[in-house]
Amino acid sequence: MEIQLKENERIDDLQYKGLKIIQNKEWFCFGIDSVILANYAKCEKKESKILDLGTGTGIIAILLSQKIENAQVIAIEIQKEVAEMAERSVRLNNLEDHVKIINDNIKNISKSLGQAKFDVVVTNPPYKKKDTGVVNENNIKMISRHEITADLEDFIRVASEELKDYGAFYMINRPERIADIIEYLRRYKLEPKEIRFIYPKINKAPNEVLIKAVKNGGKFLKVLEPLIIYNEDGSYREEILKLCEKI
Amino acid sequence: MEIQLKENERIDDLQYKGLKIIQNKEWFCFGIDSVILANYAKCEKKESKILDLGTGTGIIAILLSQKIENAQVIAIEIQKEVAEMAERSVRLNNLEDHVKIINDNIKNISKSLGQAKFDVVVTNPPYKKKDTGVVNENNIKMISRHEITADLEDFIRVASEELKDYGAFYMINRPERIADIIEYLRRYKLEPKEIRFIYPKINKAPNEVLIKAVKNGGKFLKVLEPLIIYNEDGSYREEILKLCEKI
Repeated sequence: MEIQLKENERIDDLQYKGLKIIQNKEWFCFGIDSVILANYAKCEKKESKILDLGTGTGIIAILLSQKIENAQVIAIEIQKEVAEMAERSVRLNNLEDHVKIINDNIKNISKSLGQAKFDVVVTNPPYKKKDTGVVNENNIKMISRHEITADLEDFIRVASEELKDYGAFYMINRPERIADIIEYLRRYKLEPKEIRFIYPKINKAPNEVLIKAVKNGGKFLKVLEPLIIYNEDGSYREEILKLCEKI
Repeated sequence: MEIQLKENERIDDLQYKGLKIIQNKEWFCFGIDSVILANYAKCEKKESKILDLGTGTGIIAILLSQKIENAQVIAIEIQKEVAEMAERSVRLNNLEDHVKIINDNIKNISKSLGQAKFDVVVTNPPYKKKDTGVVNENNIKMISRHEITADLEDFIRVASEELKDYGAFYMINRPERIADIIEYLRRYKLEPKEIRFIYPKINKAPNEVLIKAVKNGGKFLKVLEPLIIYNEDGSYREEILKLCEKI
């Protein structure tokens, strides 16, 4: 299939089952956090309905559609140009039957999708609070990074509304939000089940955290072994090198 | 001063400023967790009032009384025999002017001590829920380990009641309680400020967590670098070896 690239776009190979993705180098490009989250998210059912909130380039939706057998993934992206680009990545991979991109604010989706429809909800949401950080970046990058159109509580509330009972919620976020995350998860009946901190090096503070929560799940939390990205010499640790193969 | 030892008791050297402690080998003996917590707790004021909830052998109270200049430490222990042994350790170190052991349930102390009197509250509380774990251990060990006479929420509520505004709360606990800890801290206006996970080894799940919270503090949480106890060859890592010197 012939897919047209626009100005500043390029195609990257995801090195997993031949998947490719279109990115715009002026916008927000996916990072290792999305690959780690796609690796972390699990679904025991073989035909499952998955929702990706704030999909950006579509990377997590595309990876999960191939990781989980016969998965149906719906991915929401508020920014029209970004959603259109993700849609072209879906077509580039011939995944139209498995991944559907919807251009909307996550806060509106219960009207179109209904509630309690999904087995898994996954999200790599904007990390930064509305009024923090550099404000002179371009608008598209800004909305991908900052809680401008929806905040952390919105992402968690919508995830809870869309999950079936005992459905799983997977998120990656910043460690400094962990207290808010836990407060909101419990507020919306998503019981935290697993937390894994991601440390750049063995002697550094973590810069990301993975969370799994289960809708109306019982109280039983495990904090997992640390995920450390780099060896002391700056090379990737083996677990990171194997991430893509293992997805 | 001549201090009488009872059956099964021994005196251990804390290897810090000549401090010693009496322990009963049939009861709950202090572990590295207490040393780590005493090392972690800070107070910028030089004459501060410190409260230790559930002091056991008295180790944290005794260490802090020497770490923080002119500190006045009040330490609560519910078990009469254990409190009496801690009291003898205070006398053994000639610390009667700095450490006062009170034999009471933490839930009763606001009557005798009043409220909002302390700059720092520190606790290494029982880790285990009431109905979990081995139940055939002796009664004294059981109360030191299990939430029989006061539970996690009681410890956090009492800490909040006893702290002055902007006073600091330091606790060590199990990682699997972190969601409950955060929920209770916020319920009682103790804002989580620092969290540090303690991993036995680099590739293992954490088995302890340190938490600092500030009464009526603003929202700003840091998750710190990992504290890893052992090298891969089973020897202590340098940070642990230096803990006592640095207290």
